[in-house]
Amino acid sequence: MPILNKDMTLCISLSARPSNNGTRFHNHLYDQLGLNWIYKAFAPTDLALAIAGVRGLGIRGCAISMPYKEEVIALVDEMAPSAAAIDSVNTIVNDGGVLTAHNTDYAAVAALLADKGVDPASTVALRGAGGMAKATAAALRDAGFTRVTVVARNEDAGRALAGLYGFDWAAHYDDAADLLINVTPIGMAGGDEETQLSFTEEQIEAADTVFDVVAVPAETPLIQTARLLGKKVITGAEVMTLQALEQFVLYTGITPTAEQVAAAEEFMRAG
Amino acid sequence: MPILNKDMTLCISLSARPSNNGTRFHNHLYDQLGLNWIYKAFAPTDLALAIAGVRGLGIRGCAISMPYKEEVIALVDEMAPSAAAIDSVNTIVNDGGVLTAHNTDYAAVAALLADKGVDPASTVALRGAGGMAKATAAALRDAGFTRVTVVARNEDAGRALAGLYGFDWAAHYDDAADLLINVTPIGMAGGDEETQLSFTEEQIEAADTVFDVVAVPAETPLIQTARLLGKKVITGAEVMTLQALEQFVLYTGITPTAEQVAAAEEFMRAG
Repeated sequence: MPILNKDMTLCISLSARPSNNGTRFHNHLYDQLGLNWIYKAFAPTDLALAIAGVRGLGIRGCAISMPYKEEVIALVDEMAPSAAAIDSVNTIVNDGGVLTAHNTDYAAVAALLADKGVDPASTVALRGAGGMAKATAAALRDAGFTRVTVVARNEDAGRALAGLYGFDWAAHYDDAADLLINVTPIGMAGGDEETQLSFTEEQIEAADTVFDVVAVPAETPLIQTARLLGKKVITGAEVMTLQALEQFVLYTGITPTAEQVAAAEEFMRAG
Repeated sequence: MPILNKDMTLCISLSARPSNNGTRFHNHLYDQLGLNWIYKAFAPTDLALAIAGVRGLGIRGCAISMPYKEEVIALVDEMAPSAAAIDSVNTIVNDGGVLTAHNTDYAAVAALLADKGVDPASTVALRGAGGMAKATAAALRDAGFTRVTVVARNEDAGRALAGLYGFDWAAHYDDAADLLINVTPIGMAGGDEETQLSFTEEQIEAADTVFDVVAVPAETPLIQTARLLGKKVITGAEVMTLQALEQFVLYTGITPTAEQVAAAEEFMRAG
C-alpha cells in the first residue's frame, strides 16, 4: 500500500452491514496500478447526510448496498440507464459535484448471460423476488428472454416482479427449465439454509445452465452440484467481481487486465 | 501501514489548502500504536455538506483549518472551553453523532507558555492580529499576562484584538519586551518575507524568550537569531506538534509516549 497522503482520491461504500470485499478489491487494484486512490466501506448513520458528505468532501465514487438501493434515488442528480432500468442504484459517480447513479449488478448479469452464450429462447426459472432478482429479471428481459417464471413464496412480491417484465409467477416450481437462477439466500455461508439446494437435483440434471447469485461461498451447494452434473455455471462470485470491476472502471476510467482483476479477486477472498 | 479494511475509524481535516502534515503525523501514530484508524486531509467543496458527511459517515474527528475556523461554529453541537474562549474551532470530536468543537492551538500555546516557565509578569510584544494571534492572546490573558502590546499595521484588526483581552495596540513597536511573539507570515518558507525578521536584533537581544508561530521551516530566521543570542525559544513546530498531539488524544483517548510523538513528527517532516 502507498503511504497515505492528502491527495488520495477517495471512494467509499454505504451499507448497513459492510463486508470487506470492496475495500480489499479496489485498494488492491489501486496498488497494482499505482493509483493514488483509497477505498473504504462505511455503515452510515444517516443516508442523506452521508450522500451530502460525498458531495462536500468530493468523494469520487460510492457503492450503495442494502438497504439503501432505492432510498438513494431521491438523493442523486442523474440516473444512468442501468439504474433507471430497475429503479435501483448500487453505484454513484461524482463528476465535479454532479452525482450520477448506475447499477452495475444489472450490467454484470447482462454481461455474464451474453458471455456464457445462454440462448434467449431458453426456459428460465428465476427463484427470488428481491432487489437482485429485479436486476436479474430486467437483464433477462432486455436480453430477449421471454419464457421466464419468477418463483417466490411471497405472492405479492413475486407477482409484482413478474408483472413488471411480462413473466409468469409461481409459488413453487417443479418443472424442468433450461436456465435455473437462484436469487435467494439459500446456500449462503452462515445462513439457515447454508447446506440446501434452491432447485432439486432432477431440475439441475435437466438444465443446461445454472446461475447462483449467492457469492459466499464461491462454490455453493447449487454450483457444486451443477458442476458435478457437467452443467454450465454462472456464480455469484463472478457477478460480484464483474460488478465491482465495472464500478472500478466507472470511477477511474481505467480497465485493468484480466490478470490484475484475478489478483485483486484473490486478495479479496483472502480477507 | 496496515491493510486497509472496512472497520478502520476515519479522522479527516478540512482546509482550503491542505498540507500533508496531519495525514502523515496521525497515520504514523496509528501505525506505531497498532490502531485500526486512518486519517486523510480534504479540501471540501462545501463546508456544511462536509460536516454533514462527518455526521453521516460517522467520522470520528475532524481538524478545521483556514478559512473555516469561524464558519464551522454554526455547524457543531457543542463548544468546548478552548474553542469558546476565542470563538474559533480547529478540532471537532464526534461522539456518537454529537459534534463538540475544540481549539487545540489555544491549548498548545497555553501549555508551551507554562512548560517553558515564562513569567506572566513579563512584558510582551505580540506581532499579528489574525486567528492564531487571537488564540495566542487568549492564552496569554488566561495565563495572567497583562503587559501585552498587540503589534499590527492594520489598526482596526489590531485594536479589536487588543481590546478583547485588555491589551495595548501599536502599529509599530520599537521598545524592548521580555517575550517576543511573531504570529505573522514573516520568516515562512516560500513567502515574500522568508528571509526577514519580525523583530530587530536589538529587540531579540533584549528579550528573555522568543516565540515564533511560523512552523515551516522549523528554524525560522527569528528562531535562529534567538538561539544564537542564547534566548529561550518556543517554535511554531512545537505548537504544531503539540496541537496535533492534543487532537490525537481527543480523538483516540490515548496519549502516546514522547518517543512515539517524536517519531511521528520526524516522519511528518520527511513528507
